[in-house]
Amino acid sequence: MTSIKPRLKTADYVKGVLQGDRIMLGQAITLVESNLLTDQQLAANIIKKIIDHTGRSIRIGITGVPGVGKSTFIESFGLRVISHGKKLAVLTIDPSSKITKGSILGDKTRMESLSKNPLAFIRPSAAGDTQGGVAHKTREALLLCEAAGYDVIIIETVGVGQSEVEVKSMVDFFLLLMLAGAGDELQGIKKGIIEMADAIVITKADGDNIHPAVEAQAAYQQALHLLPISPSRWQPKVLTCSAVTGSGLETIWEMIELYIEQTTASGFFLQNRQQQNVSWFNDNFEQLIKADIEQHLALKKSHLENKVAQQQLSPQAAAQELLEAYYHSMKKF
Amino acid sequence: MTSIKPRLKTADYVKGVLQGDRIMLGQAITLVESNLLTDQQLAANIIKKIIDHTGRSIRIGITGVPGVGKSTFIESFGLRVISHGKKLAVLTIDPSSKITKGSILGDKTRMESLSKNPLAFIRPSAAGDTQGGVAHKTREALLLCEAAGYDVIIIETVGVGQSEVEVKSMVDFFLLLMLAGAGDELQGIKKGIIEMADAIVITKADGDNIHPAVEAQAAYQQALHLLPISPSRWQPKVLTCSAVTGSGLETIWEMIELYIEQTTASGFFLQNRQQQNVSWFNDNFEQLIKADIEQHLALKKSHLENKVAQQQLSPQAAAQELLEAYYHSMKKF
Repeated sequence: MTSIKPRLKTADYVKGVLQGDRIMLGQAITLVESNLLTDQQLAANIIKKIIDHTGRSIRIGITGVPGVGKSTFIESFGLRVISHGKKLAVLTIDPSSKITKGSILGDKTRMESLSKNPLAFIRPSAAGDTQGGVAHKTREALLLCEAAGYDVIIIETVGVGQSEVEVKSMVDFFLLLMLAGAGDELQGIKKGIIEMADAIVITKADGDNIHPAVEAQAAYQQALHLLPISPSRWQPKVLTCSAVTGSGLETIWEMIELYIEQTTASGFFLQNRQQQNVSWFNDNFEQLIKADIEQHLALKKSHLENKVAQQQLSPQAAAQELLEAYYHSMKKF
Repeated sequence: MTSIKPRLKTADYVKGVLQGDRIMLGQAITLVESNLLTDQQLAANIIKKIIDHTGRSIRIGITGVPGVGKSTFIESFGLRVISHGKKLAVLTIDPSSKITKGSILGDKTRMESLSKNPLAFIRPSAAGDTQGGVAHKTREALLLCEAAGYDVIIIETVGVGQSEVEVKSMVDFFLLLMLAGAGDELQGIKKGIIEMADAIVITKADGDNIHPAVEAQAAYQQALHLLPISPSRWQPKVLTCSAVTGSGLETIWEMIELYIEQTTASGFFLQNRQQQNVSWFNDNFEQLIKADIEQHLALKKSHLENKVAQQQLSPQAAAQELLEAYYHSMKKF
């Protein structure tokens, strides 16, 4: 996002993405993430052209608190997915701590073997500097990956709150990673996130940790039984795995395949995607309005913000004034 | 919100609220919370008329996980505030669990003595059924309470995540309640929430609990020292209190007065309110657009949603179509 490369034409990006060109895919995602108006318009045009080539991947959300071993899990699980002949893309939502502004994620080289694999595409997103619109940008990156032919898309979050709800709204399957030997409260995981999970996977189940992992598995399985049945009718599973020994990874993939099979048969899979599309529509509309204001009324808006800050105008009156300016500017379109 | 009373004229509500009439205040808040378009318009007009009479209260956010004793604390602390001759309003944000739809809060009669006190106004808000806009509605309720002459406004949240960020964005002082004998992780409190706190209060510090409470106080005080200095330059305090014995309540009030005094002197108090106003302005604008769509294009929008769900139209294309319909409808204004 910092180094600005000369931009190509819409058709060039579209062609590159549809051909599965990783460099072009990366550049297209950069456009999606850019805050420059011209980039955003270019991105919107690209999305419009590739939209018919999207929707055919399995979308998996993965979360868990820092320390649970998300990168290690995604690396080993990802290689397993690829061993089934699937192309895999990994996207990350990182809502850096609002107050400290520090990035919770490590650097880009976390998943070394996976990032070197020609069937894998890894894209850590620095979402910390965008105001809202994080979900929006991640969704568009997801669509681009689908158009580029990736069969499985993993969306990773850092597991500390709000972003899980956003990820849930864009995936088919939501996986929560947990450590053995710690209650869910100990891991800072909120009940609401447990409720969203289609599966809990206890990581690091190797060596001396196997027994605690199996115990934790039983405990969580019991806890999940207490939750109301999800609209998918799927009973959330609890599994264990080890990124070191590779145990459990195949079972996790089989479980996800079973989920897709069952929910496709029941109609939930499609219904869920349809509902997600409706909420994408609403979100897209909000983004269009924001872009409109940015394009036609940026000065007016900043002027009103100053007046509000200086208490010369109430927030309500300023909003009304901006709306009227928006009406006025539209009449010229 | 369910029983619809005949509506009065804007001027009647304004007059009632400014006179401190509790019934009128309650009805005005009901209008703010209503999803009926006519109610929303009435509410907007009322807010416009009372806006010059707002801003003069101390706004306090209080959070803590269920079981920490929030109601009991607010009841005893609130009576203490009132004993200083202050009028007190208590508003509640309750973002009921999205999935189970169950309300986390108990019923309205939680704060019995406080709710009977003529200087107190208690308003539990059922925010669970509104899509977004929770913060918006709470802010307007806050403004109405200020116009009705309340000197101290407490905004209570249930302490499980996202709503804390919203509350922080509308208060002067943010108070986190904690229990002794449990680490912060044990209480499901996230680091981000600790970072937002201007003070942590250890509740139930009485009887056998006094010693653990004092220990917890020392531990939290140490932990808070590790956090970066807040923009307010205020060093967050950790206090203990007991709603049963009343110990510590006066100290909490004095601390809040000290905070107001210090941040007023440093200019932070005003600066924070100004920033909050700017974000209220942006939020208000979004609400106006939503109301516009609801008023002029509800049918069109629902038609597009159906098309998106049936996959006859992409979310992106539908958003563009709604925007164009919006342009078109505006030209008639």
